[in-house]
Amino acid sequence: MKNSSLLLCAAFALLLAACCGRDGYRVVDGKIVFDTPARAEGQESVLGLRVDPMETVRVGFIGLGMRGPGAVERFTYLEGVEINALCDLLPERVEASQAILTRRGFPRAAEYSGEEGWKSLCERDDIDLVYICTPWQLHVPMAVYALEHGKHVAVEVPAAMSLDECWQLVDAAERAQRHCMMLENCVYDFFELTTLNMAQQGLFGEVLHVEGSYIHNLEPFWDAYQGNWRLSFDQAHRGDVYATHGLGPACQLLDIHRGDKMNYLVSVDTKSVCGAAVAREKMGAETFANGDHTLTLISTERGRTILLEHNVYTPRPYSRMYQLTGTEGFANKYPVEGYAFRPEQLNAEFPDHEDLSYHSFIPEEVKEELMERYRHPIASSIEALAREVGGHGGMDFIMDYRLVYCLRHGLPLDQDVYDAAEWSCIGALTAASLEHGSQPVAIPDFTRGDWNKIQGYRHALDEE
Amino acid sequence: MKNSSLLLCAAFALLLAACCGRDGYRVVDGKIVFDTPARAEGQESVLGLRVDPMETVRVGFIGLGMRGPGAVERFTYLEGVEINALCDLLPERVEASQAILTRRGFPRAAEYSGEEGWKSLCERDDIDLVYICTPWQLHVPMAVYALEHGKHVAVEVPAAMSLDECWQLVDAAERAQRHCMMLENCVYDFFELTTLNMAQQGLFGEVLHVEGSYIHNLEPFWDAYQGNWRLSFDQAHRGDVYATHGLGPACQLLDIHRGDKMNYLVSVDTKSVCGAAVAREKMGAETFANGDHTLTLISTERGRTILLEHNVYTPRPYSRMYQLTGTEGFANKYPVEGYAFRPEQLNAEFPDHEDLSYHSFIPEEVKEELMERYRHPIASSIEALAREVGGHGGMDFIMDYRLVYCLRHGLPLDQDVYDAAEWSCIGALTAASLEHGSQPVAIPDFTRGDWNKIQGYRHALDEE
Repeated sequence: MKNSSLLLCAAFALLLAACCGRDGYRVVDGKIVFDTPARAEGQESVLGLRVDPMETVRVGFIGLGMRGPGAVERFTYLEGVEINALCDLLPERVEASQAILTRRGFPRAAEYSGEEGWKSLCERDDIDLVYICTPWQLHVPMAVYALEHGKHVAVEVPAAMSLDECWQLVDAAERAQRHCMMLENCVYDFFELTTLNMAQQGLFGEVLHVEGSYIHNLEPFWDAYQGNWRLSFDQAHRGDVYATHGLGPACQLLDIHRGDKMNYLVSVDTKSVCGAAVAREKMGAETFANGDHTLTLISTERGRTILLEHNVYTPRPYSRMYQLTGTEGFANKYPVEGYAFRPEQLNAEFPDHEDLSYHSFIPEEVKEELMERYRHPIASSIEALAREVGGHGGMDFIMDYRLVYCLRHGLPLDQDVYDAAEWSCIGALTAASLEHGSQPVAIPDFTRGDWNKIQGYRHALDEE
Repeated sequence: MKNSSLLLCAAFALLLAACCGRDGYRVVDGKIVFDTPARAEGQESVLGLRVDPMETVRVGFIGLGMRGPGAVERFTYLEGVEINALCDLLPERVEASQAILTRRGFPRAAEYSGEEGWKSLCERDDIDLVYICTPWQLHVPMAVYALEHGKHVAVEVPAAMSLDECWQLVDAAERAQRHCMMLENCVYDFFELTTLNMAQQGLFGEVLHVEGSYIHNLEPFWDAYQGNWRLSFDQAHRGDVYATHGLGPACQLLDIHRGDKMNYLVSVDTKSVCGAAVAREKMGAETFANGDHTLTLISTERGRTILLEHNVYTPRPYSRMYQLTGTEGFANKYPVEGYAFRPEQLNAEFPDHEDLSYHSFIPEEVKEELMERYRHPIASSIEALAREVGGHGGMDFIMDYRLVYCLRHGLPLDQDVYDAAEWSCIGALTAASLEHGSQPVAIPDFTRGDWNKIQGYRHALDEE
């Protein structure tokens, strides 16, 4: 071996050592790239998964604290549903949800409680769907166990809390060939659904940029999380740990893993002042990892961008931002809902409105006419009932309705396990970016190469 | 020399080669760091610069196309001003501004035109201040020439178009010990000034995060830039090429180089669709570097953050965003002006309003009372006249008024040459980030170490 070759080899080895982290990532062209585990032999994709239509969807609920009881109640308004089991750590919570069933004229369900009750629920043979509303870190163990027992899974947000958990979820769903839908409700809010429909009909031209956030001052709510589980998680984790409400609608607008894919992200955050203060007060914590305000930029394969923000600590009006910039138009939800288009485009559609400006939102009455015209098909049939049943203004009910509708018609669900992984991985990846001085971090392709097989995100509808 | 030492040396050389770019930057811990030129011997800082008070400010204007004539007119409303010279490439533009002087009862000024007219203007000995409103790329050559001829300089935004130009400006001002103020007008808008005052009085607690942007669909205006100079610049330059309107107010809120400093930035952008289309139409351009939407995150030394956005291409309502997140409160300008605080804080100040919520903006009448109470001292005396004289709703007039006021009282100007460099360098640095896959880029300390010497940004006021 020549000297120069020796030197090159040594240099390469050193470079490699300098560029490889301990946690299964490499640095490639200045980007942190986490390893993608190989798909096990025989394991197959669940992209576009359909299972046999179910006459009745038999459901068991795990987690009846904050979000669970509302879900139980909403299910009593759905056709073709049997509520066969209820589970919570605490038996009194199970009883409270039994009371909902009784009040709504449903028979009492089988009940489970304690640390291991959820396993027994998952093992029952009269359940098709396990609906999980537990604290974040229990989502994946429960979802995986349910999938392994042949159940379909609906799981609260975020579905998974680490990159490894995201892959666990994907692999479990693929092994079981069962649905695993994250319960991202904000994609079903009325403005979001209508705007998605307008986008899919081409009103905004090509969607170039989308913004979303979770900005919700939780000061009045911290005590509602049993044992401070949420504050504890934030105390230990830097990054956008709760990205799905902002990211879900953005990904649907950008057809993520249906023709585009998120390539990488970069994040910055502020120091923690308010978070640290509340953790000191509630938990006696001396440190707090999560910044008061965290911002993330995402770049996609097709040259489009997403902005995410997270802030659950400082006094601000509630906002999920939800903003869309297209080549032909613009939509914005917070703090005021509005649309903007090129004047000539809108004048053609609304010839009576001559005062439309390049610089303004369209007038209120034009907006209302537009939103009526582009009401989303999945909302129009159920909207009145949804508003009546409620759950965050009806979006929770539309979400449950769609879940059951698709299962009963043997259709692909609105959110698949790849959505769950993509929208949930942001917490871990933003933490990696922040811990490395805002270096870009590659976003894994959880479809393992299938992101461009489906062209365009669409809600499945029964053709008959 | 042992073999192992040889290998290490070679490896180190290779690493160095891999990490060093050609354009005077290094990569340090994954960050692109541009070289800071050494300060010449004998050259001194202009931080907090004061010069002898001037009874009369004798001004010469260069560039009488879009922004210049308005400035000439506004100056005719100011006390203690002599307009001694006018210059433009085209003599007919000079004549049009002479007509403004005549209409306003001022004597005609000396006039210059042609390619080199501005040099003769700078060489006059009856001018204290050269006011530059030319296309972007002429700013630095003209400003440096004026400084070298002992003049103070006011220069339109962005003051400089490359990192090298930023340093040229700083060094020229330091060598000359003369003021060089960028004409960033948006820091003088009423909502911004009032909110800055509220922030300085502590109403928002510690300011943690600020957002600003230039979102202005220029479709109706592209033809107004002589020879397509602006579109040509965008055609050739990726990045946030026009960041100062968003960044200026943000930096004043964060006391940048008055106790905090911007450490680094990361950027993403969308592909160019609308920009490319207009450049094809107007200039026959086949490529277009500037993305339709560009986003930048900035992290500061004290753990605070800034979000910047740039979009002059797609149909959107005009927005400079202007949003402030503090530990005790929140302010937002676009699309609606509003404030939010903790209920107990506001109830103490406004005991009659009990319906204040953690989740909402304060009511309109509370906002109005608050804004009246916190009207900025520099605006209150001049506000009525400013609205009458106009210029972007009065903020241009307040800017000119302050410039002349500070010169006449021998006070530091509101914006110094370090502001000009800091706010202008964003174009070049965002381009570097974008061209390296969104890698973080260090933001130079143009004060060369003095960023923490002044504590808190304040407008200078005459004490007498």
